[in-house]
Amino acid sequence: MSKRTLKVAVLGLGTVGFGVPAILQEQKDKIEQTTEMKIVIAKALVRDVEVKKALAQKYHFQLVPDIKDIVQDPEIDVVVELIGGIEQARVFIKEALNACKHVVSANKDLIATYGEELTTLAKKQNVNFYYEAAVAGGIPILRTLSSSLSADGIYEVLGIVNGTTNHMLTQMMQKGATYDEALTSAQKLGFAEANPTNDVDGIDAAYKMVILSDFAYGMKISLDDIKIQGIRMLQSQDVKIADSLDYVFKLIGYSRKFDEGIDVAVAPALVHKNHQLANVNNEMNAVFVKSAEIGESMYYGPGAGSLPTAASVVADLIAIAQNVQHEVLGIPFNTYKKAKKLATDSQIRNQYYFHFEVLDGKKQFEQLKSLFAKAQIKIKQMIDYDPQVVVLTYAASAKRKKQFLKSIESTPGFELISVYNIFD
Amino acid sequence: MSKRTLKVAVLGLGTVGFGVPAILQEQKDKIEQTTEMKIVIAKALVRDVEVKKALAQKYHFQLVPDIKDIVQDPEIDVVVELIGGIEQARVFIKEALNACKHVVSANKDLIATYGEELTTLAKKQNVNFYYEAAVAGGIPILRTLSSSLSADGIYEVLGIVNGTTNHMLTQMMQKGATYDEALTSAQKLGFAEANPTNDVDGIDAAYKMVILSDFAYGMKISLDDIKIQGIRMLQSQDVKIADSLDYVFKLIGYSRKFDEGIDVAVAPALVHKNHQLANVNNEMNAVFVKSAEIGESMYYGPGAGSLPTAASVVADLIAIAQNVQHEVLGIPFNTYKKAKKLATDSQIRNQYYFHFEVLDGKKQFEQLKSLFAKAQIKIKQMIDYDPQVVVLTYAASAKRKKQFLKSIESTPGFELISVYNIFD
Repeated sequence: MSKRTLKVAVLGLGTVGFGVPAILQEQKDKIEQTTEMKIVIAKALVRDVEVKKALAQKYHFQLVPDIKDIVQDPEIDVVVELIGGIEQARVFIKEALNACKHVVSANKDLIATYGEELTTLAKKQNVNFYYEAAVAGGIPILRTLSSSLSADGIYEVLGIVNGTTNHMLTQMMQKGATYDEALTSAQKLGFAEANPTNDVDGIDAAYKMVILSDFAYGMKISLDDIKIQGIRMLQSQDVKIADSLDYVFKLIGYSRKFDEGIDVAVAPALVHKNHQLANVNNEMNAVFVKSAEIGESMYYGPGAGSLPTAASVVADLIAIAQNVQHEVLGIPFNTYKKAKKLATDSQIRNQYYFHFEVLDGKKQFEQLKSLFAKAQIKIKQMIDYDPQVVVLTYAASAKRKKQFLKSIESTPGFELISVYNIFD
Repeated sequence: MSKRTLKVAVLGLGTVGFGVPAILQEQKDKIEQTTEMKIVIAKALVRDVEVKKALAQKYHFQLVPDIKDIVQDPEIDVVVELIGGIEQARVFIKEALNACKHVVSANKDLIATYGEELTTLAKKQNVNFYYEAAVAGGIPILRTLSSSLSADGIYEVLGIVNGTTNHMLTQMMQKGATYDEALTSAQKLGFAEANPTNDVDGIDAAYKMVILSDFAYGMKISLDDIKIQGIRMLQSQDVKIADSLDYVFKLIGYSRKFDEGIDVAVAPALVHKNHQLANVNNEMNAVFVKSAEIGESMYYGPGAGSLPTAASVVADLIAIAQNVQHEVLGIPFNTYKKAKKLATDSQIRNQYYFHFEVLDGKKQFEQLKSLFAKAQIKIKQMIDYDPQVVVLTYAASAKRKKQFLKSIESTPGFELISVYNIFD
């Protein structure tokens, strides 16, 4: 008996789109055996059919210029959206879902923004809408959270989920590069774009934290719920001080539960060298999870790149093929849902790194200590870099931190240089 | 409408058996939402029903002394085998499968030995047989390999899959403990049993490598196909030398593909401090995977313990509940199958660490170099610890290594102290 075939149409043949047909061909035997189906790309939507002719010929698919050629084709089972951007991709995916096609996407911006609308539509249409590649490229973190950790109470997700900034921070830590040197190096290697805003300002990581929070806690949040701070203002001086105290700087996207509310943020933070995340270097990504039953676990791999990201897209295609094979209709990618609840400043707790300029020298140390005491923040370590001082604290609420920062602002003789969270 | 119920019987209420009802209760809401079913423990098989009475009362299940009370009960949907050992467990699982119960097991020895028989029977009976907890406790590595990495060509699996030995090696590396001190410490902390043979001699890790090789390559191997070397003979001296060369010693279970054949072994090895596995310390486990599409990925977490292991058992129960809910019959845990093929000594390649006693001092250095040259093994680094010498090599075949060891044996003036593989 000949195997059934899952016919796929790809929207966009960029970096990732290029990898999908390559993997389907390279891993053909394994895929056919595990799914008991053939997965073939039948069509690809491109703006200019002339440009991608060679690729289409190599992998035997048809190039089409109009989305109608795909959504109106009854033979197409799955649409893979790889064009990026938000509005156009949203329209295409809705057309595909309305035509009862399964959809796979790698588009984090779109899913972080319109994920709920699209998953609801997919459920109504009884089709699958999967997007493993949208977070941390080659790391199968979403499927792991929704299957293997579905029996666990997650309370902390710390992610190094942006390869560009992690590459830059690695250069700054290991080679003493300045921010500008690190950015130039990342751009030369193709990790950073000419306009690096989305990466260095933490927006890319924040989109991923929206999706991770959904899978970890079942809560739909938006970019507006996330405090976002990029690495643009990070000083070499703080990087060096951190190193001498056995910490590295990482751009951490964190999503943590305090009581029943969550706190989600992206910011540079000090990570202790003994922490698993401290060794995630260069363009690699990792997601570190704390949960009630398993305790600590971490998932490490490449966060971007043509083949790793395409591998996640193909894993989604395999999951769809298995559903089709077993006649299972429209299982949502993430079935866990809870009402959104954000933690308050009195609930959120962190350890902090404070770096001050002390204008009048030593005698003000005592005053600084009393300001911390007044805010009820306990000092763990105080290091004198005359005329500067660095203070590491024990965990204290965000409310107390804000009170303290206010009191420092109104006290003459101190100037706050920087403040960061610490992860031990 | 009231939810359907999945009724579970647990065989054995030891460490892991204790954790399963606890998690099912703690995570009840989340589990019911993601599966749209209730999962309840209805019965537990124990030798002495008096001993576990309090536990049974707390979680409202019935204690039974006879397996027939479970397999002949038409209300039981799933049997969770947690009694350990091989023969008795095999009989119970076969009875359960023959009675068309789904089965979950955490029994690596059994699965590494009779896995094929049991999976074949499960397939014939159209039921599920899952065993995520059998390898690396709380790390969801098997489901990840069989789902997310199902579209990838895996060619290397390196595992730190035994927590006892990893705890001991961490003590030896970080605190300069001897083997005996490290063993006593592990026993005191409850990580090592009074008779530590299975752990320190690498047998526990080897069982896990049987199962990992099946999931990575689809190949069914047995313990006899694995070269097994434990940590009993590891010298503090080698640990210190490795440290000075920026390596740590880890008990590595490796399963690697050379051309189409695989080489599977368990042995202490030098792992470079920059390698992700080097930072996996104490009783933690990790599995590091190299594959054609994703490249490098790693999965880190607790390898044992009541709750982490029980969390994997419950993840299996959830997968079964979802199959039942969607009326999907008997999907094998791992659908990838290939004929077993072992790599030959000429195909297997490694970098090596050699440690010799040189009886006649310096003048024999040249002779040593010429013996390496004769065996066509390239020297990367040669370090003089007069009257001893350590040589790190570039990659060479196992065949050349064996030739070299033979020539050393027959050459007067040299004594081999140790030889280990290196993972950079």
